[in-house]
Amino acid sequence: MHLIQVINPNTSIDITEIINQTANNLKSDYIDISVISPTKGGVPSIEGNFDVAIANIGVLDQVKIGELQGVQGHVIACFSDPGLLAAREIAVKPVIGMAEAAMHIATLLATKFSIITTLPRTLMITKQLLQQYGLIHHCSAIHNVDFSVLELVSKQEQAKEKIIECCIESKMKDGIGAIILGCAAMSNLAPLLMQELRIPVIDGISAAINIVELLIKSGLSTSKYGDLDFPSKKTLSGIFQYLN
Amino acid sequence: MHLIQVINPNTSIDITEIINQTANNLKSDYIDISVISPTKGGVPSIEGNFDVAIANIGVLDQVKIGELQGVQGHVIACFSDPGLLAAREIAVKPVIGMAEAAMHIATLLATKFSIITTLPRTLMITKQLLQQYGLIHHCSAIHNVDFSVLELVSKQEQAKEKIIECCIESKMKDGIGAIILGCAAMSNLAPLLMQELRIPVIDGISAAINIVELLIKSGLSTSKYGDLDFPSKKTLSGIFQYLN
Amino acid sequence: MHLIQVINPNTSIDITEIINQTANNLKSDYIDISVISPTKGGVPSIEGNFDVAIANIGVLDQVKIGELQGVQGHVIACFSDPGLLAAREIAVKPVIGMAEAAMHIATLLATKFSIITTLPRTLMITKQLLQQYGLIHHCSAIHNVDFSVLELVSKQEQAKEKIIECCIESKMKDGIGAIILGCAAMSNLAPLLMQELRIPVIDGISAAINIVELLIKSGLSTSKYGDLDFPSKKTLSGIFQYLN
Amino acid sequence: MHLIQVINPNTSIDITEIINQTANNLKSDYIDISVISPTKGGVPSIEGNFDVAIANIGVLDQVKIGELQGVQGHVIACFSDPGLLAAREIAVKPVIGMAEAAMHIATLLATKFSIITTLPRTLMITKQLLQQYGLIHHCSAIHNVDFSVLELVSKQEQAKEKIIECCIESKMKDGIGAIILGCAAMSNLAPLLMQELRIPVIDGISAAINIVELLIKSGLSTSKYGDLDFPSKKTLSGIFQYLN
Amino acid sequence: MHLIQVINPNTSIDITEIINQTANNLKSDYIDISVISPTKGGVPSIEGNFDVAIANIGVLDQVKIGELQGVQGHVIACFSDPGLLAAREIAVKPVIGMAEAAMHIATLLATKFSIITTLPRTLMITKQLLQQYGLIHHCSAIHNVDFSVLELVSKQEQAKEKIIECCIESKMKDGIGAIILGCAAMSNLAPLLMQELRIPVIDGISAAINIVELLIKSGLSTSKYGDLDFPSKKTLSGIFQYLN
Amino acid sequence: MHLIQVINPNTSIDITEIINQTANNLKSDYIDISVISPTKGGVPSIEGNFDVAIANIGVLDQVKIGELQGVQGHVIACFSDPGLLAAREIAVKPVIGMAEAAMHIATLLATKFSIITTLPRTLMITKQLLQQYGLIHHCSAIHNVDFSVLELVSKQEQAKEKIIECCIESKMKDGIGAIILGCAAMSNLAPLLMQELRIPVIDGISAAINIVELLIKSGLSTSKYGDLDFPSKKTLSGIFQYLN
Repeated sequence: MHLIQVINPNTSIDITEIINQTANNLKSDYIDISVISPTKGGVPSIEGNFDVAIANIGVLDQVKIGELQGVQGHVIACFSDPGLLAAREIAVKPVIGMAEAAMHIATLLATKFSIITTLPRTLMITKQLLQQYGLIHHCSAIHNVDFSVLELVSKQEQAKEKIIECCIESKMKDGIGAIILGCAAMSNLAPLLMQELRIPVIDGISAAINIVELLIKSGLSTSKYGDLDFPSKKTLSGIFQYLN
Repeated sequence: MHLIQVINPNTSIDITEIINQTANNLKSDYIDISVISPTKGGVPSIEGNFDVAIANIGVLDQVKIGELQGVQGHVIACFSDPGLLAAREIAVKPVIGMAEAAMHIATLLATKFSIITTLPRTLMITKQLLQQYGLIHHCSAIHNVDFSVLELVSKQEQAKEKIIECCIESKMKDGIGAIILGCAAMSNLAPLLMQELRIPVIDGISAAINIVELLIKSGLSTSKYGDLDFPSKKTLSGIFQYLN
Repeated sequence: MHLIQVINPNTSIDITEIINQTANNLKSDYIDISVISPTKGGVPSIEGNFDVAIANIGVLDQVKIGELQGVQGHVIACFSDPGLLAAREIAVKPVIGMAEAAMHIATLLATKFSIITTLPRTLMITKQLLQQYGLIHHCSAIHNVDFSVLELVSKQEQAKEKIIECCIESKMKDGIGAIILGCAAMSNLAPLLMQELRIPVIDGISAAINIVELLIKSGLSTSKYGDLDFPSKKTLSGIFQYLN
Repeated sequence: MHLIQVINPNTSIDITEIINQTANNLKSDYIDISVISPTKGGVPSIEGNFDVAIANIGVLDQVKIGELQGVQGHVIACFSDPGLLAAREIAVKPVIGMAEAAMHIATLLATKFSIITTLPRTLMITKQLLQQYGLIHHCSAIHNVDFSVLELVSKQEQAKEKIIECCIESKMKDGIGAIILGCAAMSNLAPLLMQELRIPVIDGISAAINIVELLIKSGLSTSKYGDLDFPSKKTLSGIFQYLN
Repeated sequence: MHLIQVINPNTSIDITEIINQTANNLKSDYIDISVISPTKGGVPSIEGNFDVAIANIGVLDQVKIGELQGVQGHVIACFSDPGLLAAREIAVKPVIGMAEAAMHIATLLATKFSIITTLPRTLMITKQLLQQYGLIHHCSAIHNVDFSVLELVSKQEQAKEKIIECCIESKMKDGIGAIILGCAAMSNLAPLLMQELRIPVIDGISAAINIVELLIKSGLSTSKYGDLDFPSKKTLSGIFQYLN
Repeated sequence: MHLIQVINPNTSIDITEIINQTANNLKSDYIDISVISPTKGGVPSIEGNFDVAIANIGVLDQVKIGELQGVQGHVIACFSDPGLLAAREIAVKPVIGMAEAAMHIATLLATKFSIITTLPRTLMITKQLLQQYGLIHHCSAIHNVDFSVLELVSKQEQAKEKIIECCIESKMKDGIGAIILGCAAMSNLAPLLMQELRIPVIDGISAAINIVELLIKSGLSTSKYGDLDFPSKKTLSGIFQYLN
């Protein structure tokens, strides 16, 4: 039995709960999954660079704790992949972000995909990630449903309708073969949308958990040689002392 | 129990045998794996565009047969990924190439990787694939050991030494964190090399089988909407009639 | 007198006939042209990656035969340029694809061009070629008339109207200076369209024949050093024996 | 009189002192400059993604404090530009990173530049920034002197010699016209190196202060419309409450 | 007191006058500014590659004269940046183009900008510059108001209305944070537009003057080592003798 | 009989003479060729951006004169392609640069080529052209023989030896299949080098003349719609009046 921890980088219990539902479907005899969120505070949702900067710290803390507790892998369950490379530096076990997982898997299923996100300003981060991972030419369009992350929870039904509508339009117009759900709070909609649209609809949390499982089975993990080696020994001070 | 078929696109029994050894390690209660090669002839090894063109047909034939026989997924076990997109057009089940599998996985473990291949002229194909998949900026260097595919078998010991030497030099000089073995006939060296080098050494065949397993579990497969939909109904003639 | 062979990679006699008409206009005291199609069967039209994979073999067979017969150059008369690099490997004489010919010539006449193709799914191949040749930033748009290749023949008049309409709209909206006809079966429309639109309209078959003639005159041909050298000596087996 | 605050994102007093010396040279009747460092703790030097993640928070805190105190602009004095976009979201006044400042200015003085940095692993961040700013094709090479940030201070003389040697070699071999010093702790060497090398040697701290001054004079600042608008109103919890 | 000369590369007195107004706002105790235009003739406005080729000569002549007269820096006040690299070769003092100045500054204020230009055909030059400077991915759109450069003067009021309208639409639809005015004859509209739109509106002439001032203060200028070194000693003949 | 004019953009009679020899080999019953150089003065050789700016004017003058005299096409016989787009704006007949001709042809013969040029600083222009034409990824290396253009004439034998040596090394090390001669004054060496090296060695002057001939035969010329339409009617003044 191998334990994967899925880190919700924001502090909203409702979103942790949605992630939990998604993760539960992937538990097996081989894999156990725990879903956690920052224990020392943070930001209730992540929709810009400031939010990402705050969320990074919670992710790093949880990765550090998880490593000490002996988890076998880490998933970052926010579509901004906050703290991804930093987490790889401090972990021996594999760390996978939900955005990178979804994007890589999508290119194996279709020549082009579109992404459905929340607010317009999240676009700059999504594009930056696509660029960094090298997959921007596989992305046909990024659509915003113009609901904030928290509104996906508070206005669940309207949001769901808007997402469905947006996916249908994307399927008709974007010249794509698959759709990526660009927010952890949308992850529970993937099965419904896939049934509705009859094309692959990819939830990055499931994708990331599956990739971590794949890596565990393969005996592969982050290279600790070179760029992603442990940070050189330095003492953190002040409010960061607990991260030493 | 789910059956994945691994297609050796060339006709060399020795290489099919190496692939078979690699695949055997991945069989489980959940996954069975059959390794096959073209039944209607082809090319004994694949080292250029002409070879790829010939190998494509064998791959497509085997994918077609596999689909009829009810296999749950297909792996193309040659580092040129011959026939990959064409195979996706004719299959309902997922199809994964060993080059794409290795390249995508490598980016999840290191910021940069190098690739070890056989003859200098295979480089043009490897580069073309990196470009197509979007991952070229993650590849630091491609090294040729200057043994042909078949020499990897016939001069096994010298080849192994040269590969080890080449990997060590790559680790020292390329600024990388991981190495990809760029030939099916190298796949059995991955465990040894990983132990020797103490960095991730990725064999694309294992990576591809693992990804197909991941997709089967996730209920995901090639999108049959748009670009990768079935070829429009047309009758093949002459020596291709058996592919109708 | 130099003989260029123009290879129709599909098996449709109607399309071979259209190509023949186009080629006839380019015969001269210096150049004779023969138009041929696969003699061992193949696919009646080429509209996706599977079709390309099949067509490759016919192209390679004809190139091989042509070389033996002493033709002075080869043109691949399908806008997917099937088998282009593979053909260059096995030929001493120049081999030019109609897509590459049209795309290169277009950049010498206008800063931007658009391409008119057949079905939406051919787009993925056209884009891949533009990327590979380096000319994607010169292409403003790719438009599909939504007629299949064979419908260009069977519904000739409706197709012609749609193509004209599509070209006019492209001229008005795309910010271009030239148009490329993206299918062999459109090649005979170039003179009419050029007259109608009063901008360069490029038929890739004529462009490719002209470039082969240019190369013959210049004493230039495919480099047989490095990447495009002859395939290393290997024996093809099974249904491919005739290609040895 | 306008006050610009220069933020040292690490906690090393020695480095703050070097930055201070550099900044002092730029004070004038028009511009006053204060150099500060994180007051709530952090990391003593920044050489990887983990360090950047920690440093982000100190930068954001100081930007927030500076805005309240009425400073007219902010400079981030670390070559990783930690927290740059996040800081722009929370500030009304301009925020400039030393890496972006140096890189932009260098392209106005030479067609190509090289960068001298500290440890090999900082390279991944420098490259990421060059990519993000669009200036990667203007960078000929990035050289590491293989001294850590803190060793630049503790082994000052050896480090200086190595930097000079490295700059001379870069000038001879890289085909460049200018050199960028890729660490705040190198900023005081710019005048000496410029004299020695007789080509522009750019210290990003001076460049960034100068650009902030330029923006203040021009009445220009970060756009608060769209991507860099203030973060939507959300309450930070736990150890981040002081950032509300 | 330092003298910067601003070169209007065309021969229209009206446009020189507009540039003069813009420049006057930037004079200070530290910086004096002279605005000049070609004294040996040229083209009345610059809207294509032919116009640029002619304008280059006037720019080079004025840079040469300015250098002899001891000016401390040069600004090229046309959005095509005519003669920019050539001018850098013959000058010791810094030379900045208004397009490059505006584009670089814009990336420091917003993640994306749009550009408002004159006639559709100027677009090819603007794109070429964005590509050359590396900033094309920061540009969301280029809009033409479809007034020629001289019509911006002769139909001042209609042009102003069209520009305002165009800016408002760009702000609403382009997903941008800032706008660049892509013509010297628009430079005087920046303050009005900034007030109207409440986002940064960048006039490249002011930006370029400010950057030259920054460079003067920093003691930085074009590298005379390598690519931008003085042209090798050669005697110009015929109508170019005055440039010796 | 169709007359093509080949414009030597510099004023050196020796180089005009070399171009003349090269052009003579291409005269036929169909094509006559005149080689000319600027009649109103210019620069004796072209090795940087300043030289290009001067040379542009001579090219434009000769294109204008040629058009009036009824020539059927223009070749710009300098590897910087000076004035290419501007010349296309003022001409009805095709205009081809020797660099673009060589680069496009090379990609039809080999997957990769190298370029042999004169002085190191010409590299910046060659790279800029490769980028603009989209062919930079086909270029493996650019080598400088470190002879100036005029030294290619004055030190003919040493230069030839150095060029041969440089080509041989490039063939051995660059992974290429073809070589481009990057200077008009090298054009006469192509046959010798091709014999020596046994790979395609491309002289851009011959390539450009051949392409112009191809276009004449095809009835194709520069699009006069959009970007390359005639410059809008404006009166040139001063020393440029003769260009009205």
